[in-house]
Amino acid sequence: MVHKKVTLIGTSTDSFDAAVDDAIARARDTLENLHWVEVEELGVELATADDKEYQAEVEVAFELE
Amino acid sequence: MVHKKVTLIGTSTDSFDAAVDDAIARARDTLENLHWVEVEELGVELATADDKEYQAEVEVAFELE
Amino acid sequence: MVHKKVTLIGTSTDSFDAAVDDAIARARDTLENLHWVEVEELGVELATADDKEYQAEVEVAFELE
Amino acid sequence: MVHKKVTLIGTSTDSFDAAVDDAIARARDTLENLHWVEVEELGVELATADDKEYQAEVEVAFELE
Amino acid sequence: MVHKKVTLIGTSTDSFDAAVDDAIARARDTLENLHWVEVEELGVELATADDKEYQAEVEVAFELE
Amino acid sequence: MVHKKVTLIGTSTDSFDAAVDDAIARARDTLENLHWVEVEELGVELATADDKEYQAEVEVAFELE
Amino acid sequence: MVHKKVTLIGTSTDSFDAAVDDAIARARDTLENLHWVEVEELGVELATADDKEYQAEVEVAFELE
Amino acid sequence: MVHKKVTLIGTSTDSFDAAVDDAIARARDTLENLHWVEVEELGVELATADDKEYQAEVEVAFELE
Amino acid sequence: MVHKKVTLIGTSTDSFDAAVDDAIARARDTLENLHWVEVEELGVELATADDKEYQAEVEVAFELE
Amino acid sequence: MVHKKVTLIGTSTDSFDAAVDDAIARARDTLENLHWVEVEELGVELATADDKEYQAEVEVAFELE
Amino acid sequence: MVHKKVTLIGTSTDSFDAAVDDAIARARDTLENLHWVEVEELGVELATADDKEYQAEVEVAFELE
Amino acid sequence: MVHKKVTLIGTSTDSFDAAVDDAIARARDTLENLHWVEVEELGVELATADDKEYQAEVEVAFELE
Repeated sequence: MVHKKVTLIGTSTDSFDAAVDDAIARARDTLENLHWVEVEELGVELATADDKEYQAEVEVAFELE
Repeated sequence: MVHKKVTLIGTSTDSFDAAVDDAIARARDTLENLHWVEVEELGVELATADDKEYQAEVEVAFELE
Repeated sequence: MVHKKVTLIGTSTDSFDAAVDDAIARARDTLENLHWVEVEELGVELATADDKEYQAEVEVAFELE
Repeated sequence: MVHKKVTLIGTSTDSFDAAVDDAIARARDTLENLHWVEVEELGVELATADDKEYQAEVEVAFELE
Repeated sequence: MVHKKVTLIGTSTDSFDAAVDDAIARARDTLENLHWVEVEELGVELATADDKEYQAEVEVAFELE
Repeated sequence: MVHKKVTLIGTSTDSFDAAVDDAIARARDTLENLHWVEVEELGVELATADDKEYQAEVEVAFELE
Repeated sequence: MVHKKVTLIGTSTDSFDAAVDDAIARARDTLENLHWVEVEELGVELATADDKEYQAEVEVAFELE
Repeated sequence: MVHKKVTLIGTSTDSFDAAVDDAIARARDTLENLHWVEVEELGVELATADDKEYQAEVEVAFELE
Repeated sequence: MVHKKVTLIGTSTDSFDAAVDDAIARARDTLENLHWVEVEELGVELATADDKEYQAEVEVAFELE
Repeated sequence: MVHKKVTLIGTSTDSFDAAVDDAIARARDTLENLHWVEVEELGVELATADDKEYQAEVEVAFELE
Repeated sequence: MVHKKVTLIGTSTDSFDAAVDDAIARARDTLENLHWVEVEELGVELATADDKEYQAEVEVAFELE
Repeated sequence: MVHKKVTLIGTSTDSFDAAVDDAIARARDTLENLHWVEVEELGVELATADDKEYQAEVEVAFELE
C-alpha cells in the first residue's frame, strides 16, 4: 500500500475551516481514496480581496491503487 | 514555580476550534492549574471518519504544586 | 515597490478566526496598503482568562509608500 | 534539465528499509528517469495493523523529459 | 476522543528498527490503546557502548479513555 | 478558487537566477495560470558538471480550473 | 533500556541558569535516574513579575525501570 | 549598544540580487547606522507581473542610538 | 487587546543574561506595557571586541493601547 | 573537556543501518575518542547506482585531547 | 565511499553568485574530489563594507579517499 | 575573504556562559582569526556528572588565510 501527497491551497471569504474544506472538496472531485489532510500554512489575502480571503495550504494524502 | 507541558490531540466533527476545545476540556478533567495552550498541528482525518474529523495537536501547560 | 512586515498578536474570547481578525482590524487602524497576513502561532490563554482567550500571532505585510 | 519531486508514503510489516523500498518500487512502476530519494518522515502504525506497519514518507526526484 | 503523546527513547545493539521496537514494546507494557508512533531522532552511542548502541527517540500516541 | 503546488528543480551553468528561470520556463510549457514561485533550496553540482551546475528547487503554485 | 522525556518550565528572578536549575531540582524531587536535560526555549516574563522572571523550558530525560 | 531588526520585502524585474538591493536602498532612505542584512525568503510573482517579479524578504539590522 | 512584537539585539561584555537585560532596558526606555520576551539567538562577537561581546537577539512583546 | 563534531555521509547498497555504520567505521579509522553520532539525513541514490545506494548523513562527536 | 562536509562562507562585492563561487574556489584550492554544494544562508554586510558585501554560507561535500 | 565554521561543544560545572567560554578558549588555542560564535544547543549532563555539567554546542567562525 502506497500513499501519495499533493499540496493544495483552498480559499474562503468566511473562515479558515471553510478554506480547508474548499481544498478537501476539490480533492474529492478528482481523487479517490483520500485518507488525511495536514494543514501547512494559514494566511489571509487583503490586497486583492473585497474584505478578507482566508487561505489554507494543505497536504492531502490518498492511497494509490 | 515550575510548569509541566503535556501533548494532547483533540478531535471534532465540527471545526478546528472545537478540536482544540476538546483537548482543553479533557485536560481540565484531570489536571489543575492549567495556564496556557500552544497549537502544534492541525489536520483532518478522512478515511475513517463519516465526513471529516478535525484534529488539533496541542501542548497544555499547567503549574506543578 | 517595497513591503514591510510587522508582527501582531490578536485575541478573542470566541475563536481563532476572530483573533486573527482582531489583529487585522488593529493593523487597518494605523497602516495603509495592507497586502496579506501570515499566521505564525495559535494559542489559548487559560490562567488569566475567564474561560478561554484565543490568541493568534500574525505577520502583516503592507506596501511602503 | 528540470527535475520534479513527488511525495510518496511506502509501508511494510518488516522494516523501515522495506517501507522506503516499497515507495521506490511504486515510483519505478509509473515514472522514468528516477534520480534520488529523500526520507522525510518515519513512523509506525499500530492501531489498524496486525502488529506493526512501518511507514516511510519520501520525496522521489525524477528527470522531466 | 482525545489522544496523548509521550516521548520515549528505545535502544538496541542491533539496528534502528530494533531500537524503535524496543520503545514500542515498553509502551505496550504500560499503556493501552496505542495508535501510532513518530520517529523524532536517530542516533548511535559509542563512548559507553561495547561497540554501538542504536537509539531512537519516538513519540507514541495512545487514546485516553 | 483552489491552487496546487508542484516542486521542480531547475538547472543552469550560469547563475541561480537562470536556474529558477529554467524551472519557471518548464512550468509554463505544461501548466496554465501560474501564480507564484517559492525558492526552497539552492545548490551547486560539481562532480558531474563541467565546471558548475547551479540548481534551484522551487515550488510553483498555479490555479486549478 | 528505555528513556522517557518530560517537558518542564523552570523560573527564577535571578538568571537563566537558575531557571534551568529550578526545573532540574523539581525533576529530582519526583523522578529517579535522571540522565540529561535539553534546553528548548528561554524567555523572560515582564507583565506579571516584579522586575523580571527568567524562564527556561527544558526536556528532562530519565531511565525507565 | 542595541540593534533592532525590521523585515522588508524588495522587488525587481531583473534578479534576486536587485530585489535585495531594492530593500537595502529603501532601508538607507529612512534608517541610519545599518549593519547587516539576512535573506529570509526568495520568490517570484508571476500572476500580476508582466513577466516575472523577483522578490526577496530580508531582515535589516541597524544600531539604535 | 492586541500585542506587537519587535526584535532587538542586546550586548554585554559580561554574560548572556546581561545581554538580554540590555535589550529589555532599551525596550523599557521607549515602549510601555511590556509583557514578555523570547530569546531567539545567542552569539559571541570576537573579531571586533576586546575579549568577548555576548549578544542576545530577543523578541519583545508589548500591548498596544 | 571539549568535543568537536564533523559531518560525514556513509553509503551502502544494503541498508540505512549499514550506511550509518560505514560512516562510523571511517570515523574510527582517523579519529579517536568517538562519543556519539546523530543521524541528520537519510536518502537513496538511484541514477548512478546499480539498483539503490542507501545514504546516511551523520554528525560524529569526538573528544578533543 | 564516504563523503565529508565542511562549512565555508564566501564573500563578494558583486553578487550572491560570486560569493558562492568564492567559497567554491577556496574549497578547490585545498580539497580534492568536490561533489556538491548546498547554500545554507545568504546575507549582506553593510557596516564594515564600502557599499555592500554579499555573503554566502555553504556546505561543501567532498569524497574522502 | 573566506570564513570556515567548526562545531565545538564546551562544558562547565558552573554555568552555560562558562561552557561557551570553554569552547572559545579551546578554539583560540588552535585557530587564528576567530570572528564570531553562534550558540546552537544548550544542555545539562546529569547521569555521569557529580552534580551538573553544563554543555554548550557552538559554531565558531574564523577567517581562512
